[in-house]
Amino acid sequence: MVYVVGHKNPDTDSICSAIAYAELKKKLGVDAKPARLGDVNPETAFVLEKFGFEVPELIEDGEGKKLILVDHSDKAQSVDNIDKAEIVEIIDHHKIGDITTPNPIFFLAMPVGCTATVVKLLYDYYNVEIPKEIAGLLLSAILSDTVIFKSATTTDKDIKAAEELARIAGIADINTFGVQLKSKLSDVEKLTAEE
Amino acid sequence: MVYVVGHKNPDTDSICSAIAYAELKKKLGVDAKPARLGDVNPETAFVLEKFGFEVPELIEDGEGKKLILVDHSDKAQSVDNIDKAEIVEIIDHHKIGDITTPNPIFFLAMPVGCTATVVKLLYDYYNVEIPKEIAGLLLSAILSDTVIFKSATTTDKDIKAAEELARIAGIADINTFGVQLKSKLSDVEKLTAEE
Ligand SMILES: [Mn+2]
Ligand SMILES: [Mn+2]
Ligand SMILES: [Mn+2]
Ligand SMILES: [Mn+2]
Repeated sequence: MVYVVGHKNPDTDSICSAIAYAELKKKLGVDAKPARLGDVNPETAFVLEKFGFEVPELIEDGEGKKLILVDHSDKAQSVDNIDKAEIVEIIDHHKIGDITTPNPIFFLAMPVGCTATVVKLLYDYYNVEIPKEIAGLLLSAILSDTVIFKSATTTDKDIKAAEELARIAGIADINTFGVQLKSKLSDVEKLTAEE
Repeated sequence: MVYVVGHKNPDTDSICSAIAYAELKKKLGVDAKPARLGDVNPETAFVLEKFGFEVPELIEDGEGKKLILVDHSDKAQSVDNIDKAEIVEIIDHHKIGDITTPNPIFFLAMPVGCTATVVKLLYDYYNVEIPKEIAGLLLSAILSDTVIFKSATTTDKDIKAAEELARIAGIADINTFGVQLKSKLSDVEKLTAEE
């Protein structure tokens, strides 16, 4: 069994891309399971509930585990004892980090706004239909990472992927959904500030 | 302008994948040029002559250059002053090396027998027709790296790619061509040993 896991202090992309890529691997015949390295934030909790997913399993030690890393390629951001884990794949959209491997693996990093965009392209590459609820997760991750396409990291690929995912997920107004999504974090930040 | 360059002490894969990937980038609108980090071996020289290619430009210092790395992701194998180069892409089939970047880039490594197999898949992904002579180069690299499909690193993807490339290149008997190719290195080794 292989865990698909994002970075520490997980954001919506790290959680949703892990779930969506684990689902793709399963459809490709790999015994894969999403995991997380910490508490999910209120935005991510909203997304998981909306699309009907459980919070992924928490893992705290990489020793002896088979891992697919998403949304990071830096040791410091990864699970403790990453050097004692077997990294079998990396899917990312950040600068290339310091993780090395003793064997050849599949490593795909793209200069786009979100790992979910890369995961969407991989579903397309393998010709695997994206389930409606998975499309909702991936769309949420893109809207979160790109701040509804306003971040400097946003690319045409992110926008195109989001539009296709919204269609699959049955979300008619991307912007309204994006604003609703992003408000979940700011609500909490406001609450915390007021307390 | 960006140089596409393989590793030091270049083998047939490092030279041929650099030429073929530079050609793909040019067809995608990027001003790319193949380069090399050392003398080509007799096997590679045979391949370049057979398919009508010049020996790529020698580069000896990475400082200030824009580079696409093929067939390696390790600093020690790369051009001198790699830390002062701008690495814009990496295409490889080895274990993940120690190269990091300050910005997101396209990094594609696959656990297959040859970088040329990855380059072939990228032509297909971008829907770019592979020119006959480029197909000859890529086929040669696969036969070289996989020792005519006998190396432990050989995968189904390498064999499938080689078969398609042989068809495009008009090479009817892959095995005979592979033996001819591999004999170029052993001839020289024999000569050198006898001298
Ligand atoms: Mn993230
Ligand atoms: Mn991300
Ligand atoms: Mn090589
Ligand atoms: Mn190689």
